[in-house]
Amino acid sequence: MADLLEQDNTHQTLQEVNKALENGMFVHVRRLLQDMEPEDIAHLLEASPPKERQVLWQLTDPEEQGEILDELSEDVKDGIVAQMAPEKLAAVTEGMESDDVAYVLRSLPDERYQEVLAQMDATDRHRVEKALAYSEDSAGGMMSTDFITIRGDVTADVVLRYLRMRGELPEATDALYVVDENEYLIGHISLATLVTTQPDIEIREVMEDSDEAIPVDMDDSEIANLFERRNWLSAPVVDSNNHLVGRITIDDVVDIIREDAEHSMMSMAGMDDEEDTFAPVMKSARSRSIWLGVNVLAALAAASVSNMFEATLDKMAAIAVLMTIVPSMGGVAGNQTVALVIRGLAVGHIGDSNTRWLLSKEARVGLINGLLWALIIGGVVVLWKGDIILGAIIAGAMLTNLIIAGVAGVCIPVMLKKFNIDPALAGGMALTTITDIVGLSVFLGLATIFLV
Amino acid sequence: MADLLEQDNTHQTLQEVNKALENGMFVHVRRLLQDMEPEDIAHLLEASPPKERQVLWQLTDPEEQGEILDELSEDVKDGIVAQMAPEKLAAVTEGMESDDVAYVLRSLPDERYQEVLAQMDATDRHRVEKALAYSEDSAGGMMSTDFITIRGDVTADVVLRYLRMRGELPEATDALYVVDENEYLIGHISLATLVTTQPDIEIREVMEDSDEAIPVDMDDSEIANLFERRNWLSAPVVDSNNHLVGRITIDDVVDIIREDAEHSMMSMAGMDDEEDTFAPVMKSARSRSIWLGVNVLAALAAASVSNMFEATLDKMAAIAVLMTIVPSMGGVAGNQTVALVIRGLAVGHIGDSNTRWLLSKEARVGLINGLLWALIIGGVVVLWKGDIILGAIIAGAMLTNLIIAGVAGVCIPVMLKKFNIDPALAGGMALTTITDIVGLSVFLGLATIFLV
Repeated sequence: MADLLEQDNTHQTLQEVNKALENGMFVHVRRLLQDMEPEDIAHLLEASPPKERQVLWQLTDPEEQGEILDELSEDVKDGIVAQMAPEKLAAVTEGMESDDVAYVLRSLPDERYQEVLAQMDATDRHRVEKALAYSEDSAGGMMSTDFITIRGDVTADVVLRYLRMRGELPEATDALYVVDENEYLIGHISLATLVTTQPDIEIREVMEDSDEAIPVDMDDSEIANLFERRNWLSAPVVDSNNHLVGRITIDDVVDIIREDAEHSMMSMAGMDDEEDTFAPVMKSARSRSIWLGVNVLAALAAASVSNMFEATLDKMAAIAVLMTIVPSMGGVAGNQTVALVIRGLAVGHIGDSNTRWLLSKEARVGLINGLLWALIIGGVVVLWKGDIILGAIIAGAMLTNLIIAGVAGVCIPVMLKKFNIDPALAGGMALTTITDIVGLSVFLGLATIFLV
Repeated sequence: MADLLEQDNTHQTLQEVNKALENGMFVHVRRLLQDMEPEDIAHLLEASPPKERQVLWQLTDPEEQGEILDELSEDVKDGIVAQMAPEKLAAVTEGMESDDVAYVLRSLPDERYQEVLAQMDATDRHRVEKALAYSEDSAGGMMSTDFITIRGDVTADVVLRYLRMRGELPEATDALYVVDENEYLIGHISLATLVTTQPDIEIREVMEDSDEAIPVDMDDSEIANLFERRNWLSAPVVDSNNHLVGRITIDDVVDIIREDAEHSMMSMAGMDDEEDTFAPVMKSARSRSIWLGVNVLAALAAASVSNMFEATLDKMAAIAVLMTIVPSMGGVAGNQTVALVIRGLAVGHIGDSNTRWLLSKEARVGLINGLLWALIIGGVVVLWKGDIILGAIIAGAMLTNLIIAGVAGVCIPVMLKKFNIDPALAGGMALTTITDIVGLSVFLGLATIFLV
């Protein structure tokens, strides 16, 4: 219910905005946008077709454009950034945190972002260049360099006085980092601990050791797993010398968790997880075409299998009618296993220690469901076509294919992962190719032996 | 790289534990488990086959069992809880937060959890009963009832003194809630603001209004979207009278985000997202069998279509050989669209205001890719089978099916959502059934008209 209400709100605004746009009431749209938070404007832009999106962007407050860009998903952000002048980009990113500026600029071609950097003042440029030097998918690329450090030998009261003098804390601050005179990280103290500590107690007595600081080159998915498992709100980032270089907060990690999980779903359907729902037609057609090309090969492979049995098909049309059933069931059963294994690999549940157990389990699941559906389909075919041998043949092919589907469903993603190929992307297609080929070969092969 | 390291660590522990278990070195295993965090033990249990899981559970520290249960995924947790005596359950959940106890007990049959509740002391029982009364998927079912309230007319200094006197704050506290004398929520103050406020300033001058408090019956996915969009760390929960009743923290929301995203992936493959990777064979076979049953109907529907063209198939085996290609391409293209639309619906990008635009876009993407692959496959067939009419027929069927796939890929999930049916679960199967039927009918129909 609440779900519907909230989405209705967004779409009411969207419809109001669309109507105002159609009628050319740009002043009204500008006023609507002024009342919205940057993250809601980002959402509105993402939910708009290309033309409306462009007009809307022109009507946003330039002061807020930097923050809106930071909230947009990559594909949509890139589309907008590509059309902005360097001076404009430098202006809208002024005052933003360096990791957010790096996100906004990362997709620009080299010479374009050099132009943008040239427009910034020296300190900002230096910080952004540092952020851009880290890989986008690493701790360095995600971290903020805006954090508060204190010494261990001061009292809680001194820290509070310092914070009051300093004023507002960096966004999403939940802990202060304790460093020694060489800026080496030695611990951290949460604000929750700070406010419950007696004023005369020294920080080092109540701080926690930072033995789980994040290395600057750690992979973002791994960081997300750590945050999720440890229930962290933020974590310090250190370089190879245990020198404190940044801070990662849960709000950035939440985006990674969503992206990783979406990645599995989108990849299994052969889509890029960054694909903009409202991308231009040609762009979408091109990006999807690659996957269709892979499937053409798979479909032709299956057709070549049938082709080998052309003589059999020529003699008995009933075989052609029934030949799609076994591959279809094998594909569905195998993809169930593939989805389970892909999730297990992503969350780190599956490794050398338990792959064999899982393989034997999935083979047995295939055996049980294979027996069940072999009996049912065999029975249906006997009743439908009145041919007991044909029923037995399809039952045998079904049983074989469902067992193969279970085994391949475990082996394919695990092996792809070993070869560093994304199992979510290639797993389903490889599986379907195998179940198609096995299903057709066994069914048509048995038919050739026993019926022709 | 870090990814591999971390997973290696888990699997090294797992292998060490497995080896120790095989050799009956239970004391060694118990010691290994004592050195681990509850969340890591939960991970180890989830990554273990059923028998090992049971032995491991017996070797965990009873003091930690409550926390481990809370960290386990639902299916695994339920398996363990079902075998525990009521006194044992009451003992391990003692001292836990009421929402966590509710999570642990929720799956028990009525009389069993009444027995557990009877073992608790009156206050705990009352709190847990209250938590159990809310739906699992609502704010009420997620919230913690452990939070700190203050009045608006006290100074920052008074609050700090109160907190120091109170000692440790509830887990993941990042803000204090400001209520009036009737416990109505009037605002909140983050710890970050508190520590930067001068001691003599009154709270109401620096607090923020809580105009976005979460209603107690709000749906969990909606809560997750709000947290994600607003970058919240925690949020107050109020009843219909704006009475403060609880607090939701980001760590619980992260679990929802992961579950929602996994749900889409697993559902599209016809799996329950709570399915335990290492579930017993019979349990897995049963749960998957339902989906295979749905697919049997879809496969039989496709076979009936071919059956209508039995006479055609009887005359020309090449048609049978090629007839699987067009349905296969349609299924893959349609599922790309379905995945895009399911994600768009889940994040709230797609609504009445833009469905029509999206429909026309996907139809045009289908047209472009349809033309491309019609030409390619048509050409391949002409070369392969030396039959220009057959090539033209398959090209025409391909073009038709890819356009239909784009249109159906948008319409099916959107309509399912309108009828309150989960588009992720039913969308892919419904799409494939349509592209199979359309693909076969058009190809075999054209072949019947022009070739037979």
